[in-house]
Amino acid sequence: MKILLIGGEGTIGKAVAAAFRLRGMEVITAGRNSGDVQADISQPAMIERMYRQTGTVNAVICTAGTGYYGPFRTMTTDMMMPGIQGKLMGQINLVLIGQDYLAKGGSFTLTTGIAAEHPARNGTCVSMINGAVNSFVLGAAQEMTEERRINAVSPGLVENSFERYGSAFPGYNLVPMGKLVNAYILSVEGAVNGKILKVYS
Amino acid sequence: MKILLIGGEGTIGKAVAAAFRLRGMEVITAGRNSGDVQADISQPAMIERMYRQTGTVNAVICTAGTGYYGPFRTMTTDMMMPGIQGKLMGQINLVLIGQDYLAKGGSFTLTTGIAAEHPARNGTCVSMINGAVNSFVLGAAQEMTEERRINAVSPGLVENSFERYGSAFPGYNLVPMGKLVNAYILSVEGAVNGKILKVYS
Ligand SMILES: NC(=O)c1ccc[n+]([C@@H]2O[C@H](COP(=O)([O-])OP(=O)(O)OC[C@H]3O[C@@H](n4cnc5c(N)ncnc54)[C@H](OP(=O)(O)O)[C@@H]3O)[C@@H](O)[C@H]2O)c1
Ligand SMILES: NC(=O)c1ccc[n+]([C@@H]2O[C@H](COP(=O)([O-])OP(=O)(O)OC[C@H]3O[C@@H](n4cnc5c(N)ncnc54)[C@H](OP(=O)(O)O)[C@@H]3O)[C@@H](O)[C@H]2O)c1
Repeated sequence: MKILLIGGEGTIGKAVAAAFRLRGMEVITAGRNSGDVQADISQPAMIERMYRQTGTVNAVICTAGTGYYGPFRTMTTDMMMPGIQGKLMGQINLVLIGQDYLAKGGSFTLTTGIAAEHPARNGTCVSMINGAVNSFVLGAAQEMTEERRINAVSPGLVENSFERYGSAFPGYNLVPMGKLVNAYILSVEGAVNGKILKVYS
Repeated sequence: MKILLIGGEGTIGKAVAAAFRLRGMEVITAGRNSGDVQADISQPAMIERMYRQTGTVNAVICTAGTGYYGPFRTMTTDMMMPGIQGKLMGQINLVLIGQDYLAKGGSFTLTTGIAAEHPARNGTCVSMINGAVNSFVLGAAQEMTEERRINAVSPGLVENSFERYGSAFPGYNLVPMGKLVNAYILSVEGAVNGKILKVYS
């Protein structure tokens, strides 16, 4: 089983890569400046090039992307665009373009987040992006052909990210990385389709 | 009470406008080519100009916008862009820019749709847009100042739209227009904030 993991050198991605490798799978990581293959998912042409480099894969997992955090009062379209082009349209294009490169019976696993339903202060842009990708997954699951599947993993605040993000998420439970990684395993190796796998604590 | 209703000459908008006028309120309608004021919400500069024309209002309601319907297999970013710029970013910008023009205690009411959680075949783009706006509303509600509020109304298939859209939504219950209009009244005149008012049957 060959897995393409975009964001595979990030906080969550590293743990996901390690887990699948332990399970005997080949994991190809991708990032803008990190990983085995370089691609910026906010550019469809780079996604296409990445897939041509990897060839057909059995699973595509994305743990890449973020969105604007900052005061709502002064937020503008320009501030929101990088997140919309990256985590939102980037993940959507990984699926749309990836249909040509995902093997029969393969799966897409995107990453959203708890903010879709429990937004943090200053985090409305990220909530919006997570809500968008969650609903995209519900629709896309109905459209999958050749027994392919698609799910989203929606993490709460991961324990490993507490130092980096904890102050922005007061009162959010910490998610043990092992529990979060299990959701990616369930999506890739299980039979679930069209699910938002919420791992909030 | 002065209400700015974008999309006020559309199927839902006309019914919403009539109801608020019956309730003694001033309703200013807006559309690209229809209504009292012309504006295309996919262009932030036109939103700004529209608000300068209306001046301060007590409620902003949006019943404008749509998104791409078509085969998932061949969907591209280009096909999705009009909906993203219109129903998604257009509604977001009505709020971001509208903060300067909404009176204290006023409300924003956006429109999403049942597809956010029950996508139709060929409708994944619209699902995504609805999910995005729903989650935006949850975040934005927490950021409102001066006792302002924001909600989304999420319609199912409206009875008046059965001829136009019915064949694309087999098995979806028809929503009586009066029930749907009530959700807009609840959002504008009630105390609710940060709610997705679902009217699915
Ligand atoms: N950490 C948490 O507690 C938490 C909670 C909820 C949701 N999430 C979500 O989970 C995902 C991963 O989070 P994380 O904390 O692991 O992030 P992270 O540590 O910042 O890692 C993200 C990785 O993705 C790559 N990347 C970023 N933008 C990219 C792009 N446009 N194209 C290709 N690769 C890109 C980065 O590598 P390069 O710099 O080389 O591109 C990086 O290795 C994100 O979507 C985040 O919003 C995280
Ligand atoms: N009808 C349903 O059964 C149903 C079900 C679920 C959700 N919804 C949602 O409810 C909303 C209204 O639906 P509807 O059936 O009433 O739509 P509609 O009949 O097509 O009316 C939409 C109105 O919005 C205006 N408009 C469209 N794009 C615009 C833009 N970019 N800027 C400014 N005005 C714009 C149009 O006027 P101009 O042409 O003059 O711009 C039109 O009068 C939509 O978001 C739709 O997705 C509807």
